[in-house]
Amino acid sequence: MKIQRVRDYVVDNLGYALNPKSIAVIGASRCPNKVGHKVIDGLNKWGYKGKIYPVNPRCDKVAGLPCYARVCDIEDEIDLAFIAVPAHLVYAILQDCVAKQVKIVVIATSAFKEIGRGDMQDQLTQYCRDHKLPLIGPNLVGMGSPIMNFNCGFIPYLPCVGPVALISQSGANLLAALGTSQKDHFGMSFFVGLGNKADVDFSEFIAYADNDENTRCIAVYIEGLDSPEAFLDICQKVHKPIVAIKVGRSPIGVKAAFAHTASENTNDDKYYDELFAKAGVIRATTWQQFLDISLALGTMPPLKNDNIIMITNGGGSGLLSCDHFDRLGMPLKEVKDISAGLAARLKAYMPMFGSVLNPVDISGTASVTQYKGAFMQAMRDPNVSGVLGSICPTAVTDVHAVALAAIEVYEKCKHLNKPFVMECQGGQECQDAIMLLRDHGICAYPTAEQAVEAMVALRKYGEIIEVKN
Amino acid sequence: MKIQRVRDYVVDNLGYALNPKSIAVIGASRCPNKVGHKVIDGLNKWGYKGKIYPVNPRCDKVAGLPCYARVCDIEDEIDLAFIAVPAHLVYAILQDCVAKQVKIVVIATSAFKEIGRGDMQDQLTQYCRDHKLPLIGPNLVGMGSPIMNFNCGFIPYLPCVGPVALISQSGANLLAALGTSQKDHFGMSFFVGLGNKADVDFSEFIAYADNDENTRCIAVYIEGLDSPEAFLDICQKVHKPIVAIKVGRSPIGVKAAFAHTASENTNDDKYYDELFAKAGVIRATTWQQFLDISLALGTMPPLKNDNIIMITNGGGSGLLSCDHFDRLGMPLKEVKDISAGLAARLKAYMPMFGSVLNPVDISGTASVTQYKGAFMQAMRDPNVSGVLGSICPTAVTDVHAVALAAIEVYEKCKHLNKPFVMECQGGQECQDAIMLLRDHGICAYPTAEQAVEAMVALRKYGEIIEVKN
Repeated sequence: MKIQRVRDYVVDNLGYALNPKSIAVIGASRCPNKVGHKVIDGLNKWGYKGKIYPVNPRCDKVAGLPCYARVCDIEDEIDLAFIAVPAHLVYAILQDCVAKQVKIVVIATSAFKEIGRGDMQDQLTQYCRDHKLPLIGPNLVGMGSPIMNFNCGFIPYLPCVGPVALISQSGANLLAALGTSQKDHFGMSFFVGLGNKADVDFSEFIAYADNDENTRCIAVYIEGLDSPEAFLDICQKVHKPIVAIKVGRSPIGVKAAFAHTASENTNDDKYYDELFAKAGVIRATTWQQFLDISLALGTMPPLKNDNIIMITNGGGSGLLSCDHFDRLGMPLKEVKDISAGLAARLKAYMPMFGSVLNPVDISGTASVTQYKGAFMQAMRDPNVSGVLGSICPTAVTDVHAVALAAIEVYEKCKHLNKPFVMECQGGQECQDAIMLLRDHGICAYPTAEQAVEAMVALRKYGEIIEVKN
Repeated sequence: MKIQRVRDYVVDNLGYALNPKSIAVIGASRCPNKVGHKVIDGLNKWGYKGKIYPVNPRCDKVAGLPCYARVCDIEDEIDLAFIAVPAHLVYAILQDCVAKQVKIVVIATSAFKEIGRGDMQDQLTQYCRDHKLPLIGPNLVGMGSPIMNFNCGFIPYLPCVGPVALISQSGANLLAALGTSQKDHFGMSFFVGLGNKADVDFSEFIAYADNDENTRCIAVYIEGLDSPEAFLDICQKVHKPIVAIKVGRSPIGVKAAFAHTASENTNDDKYYDELFAKAGVIRATTWQQFLDISLALGTMPPLKNDNIIMITNGGGSGLLSCDHFDRLGMPLKEVKDISAGLAARLKAYMPMFGSVLNPVDISGTASVTQYKGAFMQAMRDPNVSGVLGSICPTAVTDVHAVALAAIEVYEKCKHLNKPFVMECQGGQECQDAIMLLRDHGICAYPTAEQAVEAMVALRKYGEIIEVKN
């Protein structure tokens, strides 16, 4: 439901949803397949250190814990109430939560506005707002933080630790990102599914993420924006990069977004392009791009201008890249036009048939020493604002050693505050190198175009902060 | 160098490059890092069953094999001469090859036209053409076929067996595809690097691939097209889908393409859009799309019309997909507009809060039985031309079992000749499911948009064969 602006009492209490000392699971169940059971399982499995209080009037014990008939019966203070009871019982439960002075409620239950029960949902929202009790959901999958070993919901993964806060309206896509996080070392600070967002809005989680010391990039998946004014207002104030993906552009997508999370899309897609531009939010088109750009903005400083040097041992990879830079409206410049002496210095690190155009092609015979020298020359050149390194395995390429060289160069040049993006295209050893690079804070990708999109996003954020400052 | 049209003597002899009974390695070397050594290593390592004859006047033995001073000294017939001698020696070697009546020559050596020695390269071409000796290269990485366990060049991978013939002008990108093939089960029939393509042209390998019984899709990576007329002519005649990626669109890309493979790009990028459209070639934009579309066209029949049903357990994945279908100009239709009774039949396989719009959202609680039933209903409906299945792991999803169900449905419905494309977004179990599906001939992808692009390409090919027939 619409809000005019970010509400302080909501933002102040969001920490109770991501780092609660005590959780009441209302609708706790002995049946292993029920949400009311899985949430307790998940909390225990992933290492939650706080207290868990199952609530269910028809059980004595759930998951080995004593079960309470009502939340009011619990002696302890309750930070978070996780509600997984049938939809028609939720209102009464909220009354209990208010009486108990619970700090925040999360409603996992479905079958509200998304199936036509908008009135029933609005009644919950109004009740919570009247009592200043922030409500997350309903119709959501959960939330958590790998830093806290906290996984609260019915979520089969905990992501690896990293800089991206993921705020998603879709449960399925949130879970996909969490799975990808483990598999592809895409690190997160926290994650939350917002579902129907009856009360707590994107903008309030964005405000929270801005204050969160572990978050360096805020990634938002949107199906519908009830409160564009609040969103615009907070995005303009935030000091961290924000990446958004917004779905529901097609006529059938508008219907599907409603059926999914009761999202209403009365504005056309261009409206969102303009809103995001005004808000200083970088819009991603595809899911892969959403993840890739978020990783880049979470790990690298912004790009000050478009003086980028690309260094590769594969001419083909260089061509895919320079075409994609052109396609995205940020064509590569020739090395000689970026820095007068650089071409000559780079030539020391390539064979006679290499090329110092840009992409700089140090050729398929490139050794680790040549890679390291070329990377270092480019990074240290004061006229260069960012370096895109590319590894293409040939019969003589030691992919792992080149990745280590890249990490060494990056560590030595960190104080220069320049983006260093890597691409490594090929088989398993390339995937391993990408993971190694990511684990050392370098954003690395398996295709040329993904690396280029990362660079372009870093420049876009550079432009956004020029306007903001 | 330009050809007017595909030459029969070239196409007839290309089999000697991909399935030779005997190979002379001219420039064979005892030094393990030299191409003239690596090629022999690679042939042996990957299981080449034919005869290898090292040629080098300064060695007695290479890799344990007796070494010949000149190719003419070998008593046996030579199918393929693989040349890895310095550029200035190549012409004399070619004279020997003609004298020996070698069937085809492959020149790995670099430093010809791409560094300004166009005359030197043209001289080789003219000599070979005068003597009807097909020349592949120079400046290439090699070729091979996993079906023959044949890996001839300096190539660290052999791909897995499958339907795609990959014809690439870039060595680095060819190697990337071969590495990806192993890692992501992207199957190939054969692969070849064309390098500077001084003589043998894309069009001749396309003609060869059309005759090759193991190839179902022809994938071509192009840096420059010397002979667009021959290309157009053969593509219009071919009976298999062709996917092309063409780089060198940007001003700096034009220079880089020349520096890389001496490719001359005098036409702008739109020229290629038009040429490919006229030729019935599907153009890919990014490398990932190039691989994804090639896999789809290699494994699935074309899509007869746009009556596609998408079935997912994740509303968010459905939204990403229906937006992307819309973006690509092929919006999803509602289920009720595709087939009158289908929605009612699908409802039997989802909970009350599922959606039969399209995407069909069988919800995060979907069981294997529900998946199987929904897939089967959609595949068997005579009004449905193709099905896009999507698996989003929730806490109750058995990803592996759903993949097996998809395989079962596909096997039962194969005779219907409809595309069945799968998407599986998430962690390692999703990657495993994608590999399982691919191993059973179903094209499957890790993101919604990739699956959509595959479907759209299958429709494009449907349109192309409607025009051809």
